[in-house]
Amino acid sequence: MDKAKVLARLRSIEGHIRGVERMVEEDNYCVDIIHQTLAIKNAIDKVNQMILTDHLTGCVSTAIRSEESSERERVINELLELFQTSNKL
Amino acid sequence: MDKAKVLARLRSIEGHIRGVERMVEEDNYCVDIIHQTLAIKNAIDKVNQMILTDHLTGCVSTAIRSEESSERERVINELLELFQTSNKL
Amino acid sequence: MDKAKVLARLRSIEGHIRGVERMVEEDNYCVDIIHQTLAIKNAIDKVNQMILTDHLTGCVSTAIRSEESSERERVINELLELFQTSNKL
Amino acid sequence: MDKAKVLARLRSIEGHIRGVERMVEEDNYCVDIIHQTLAIKNAIDKVNQMILTDHLTGCVSTAIRSEESSERERVINELLELFQTSNKL
Repeated sequence: MDKAKVLARLRSIEGHIRGVERMVEEDNYCVDIIHQTLAIKNAIDKVNQMILTDHLTGCVSTAIRSEESSERERVINELLELFQTSNKL
Repeated sequence: MDKAKVLARLRSIEGHIRGVERMVEEDNYCVDIIHQTLAIKNAIDKVNQMILTDHLTGCVSTAIRSEESSERERVINELLELFQTSNKL
Repeated sequence: MDKAKVLARLRSIEGHIRGVERMVEEDNYCVDIIHQTLAIKNAIDKVNQMILTDHLTGCVSTAIRSEESSERERVINELLELFQTSNKL
Repeated sequence: MDKAKVLARLRSIEGHIRGVERMVEEDNYCVDIIHQTLAIKNAIDKVNQMILTDHLTGCVSTAIRSEESSERERVINELLELFQTSNKL
């Protein structure tokens, strides 16, 4: 995984949240605040895409090529669960 | 709006993100990292619910009772847009 | 509400689902089938936007202008619940 | 894929949509209608889970074990795209 890139994005999200805290402290308009928090959710999705790409090309591919069927089942069930949870957030 | 409560939640989310940064630095398992970022999205949704409750009982109610139809239209269009954007994140 | 328009869209969604049934019967590629079901979810969102617009300009506005605070609370709580459920689907 | 089960669910969704059409024709309360369409989106998600499970254990596993790296890349990119689109609907 390109750790440096993922970390840079996470730090930028951290700064974005501090920006929202200031908006709340300074009584900004509710709708403007919510638009910022939705932008943060979007930024988190992009980090997840990066991590997931790495996961699919790395761990998942290795596990699926492994001899142990329990290992293959594990990564597939993990992916399905992730898909399902992510879908709801 | 209960600013103190909203701020407390935002600070907790900020801490949660720093926790994810540490997980990335320490090469934690991808799937565990994604589960943490999904929990953060969930926490942001809860903050949005709090802000939106305040918005609906405050600004929206005031605007809808106002004499100016342009003002009523403005808050309703804002709500629809928020609903639509939020639905996609 | 523009009932004719909403009904036309719902009938088109119904036809879209029958199309997906045929794709399953004819063993189409899984990923192509899922792309169709996601398009259907998107079409449902558009119908919901139409119904919600009507709801906000109609019922919600009437209730918020009413004298009864219980009525105002009811529509606001309904909106919040809808917002929350919709966000998760 | 358990075609019979997937088809049974799709037919039930089709019937559910016809139910919503009747609700619109009979001027049911907007919020009740939207709750039904959200239930339909949920039902579609469940069908997608079934199709995706089959896809991961079938096509994806075969492709990842194949000698051709272009084939492996194709299924992984498809999965990422599906994940991203699904996340937004």
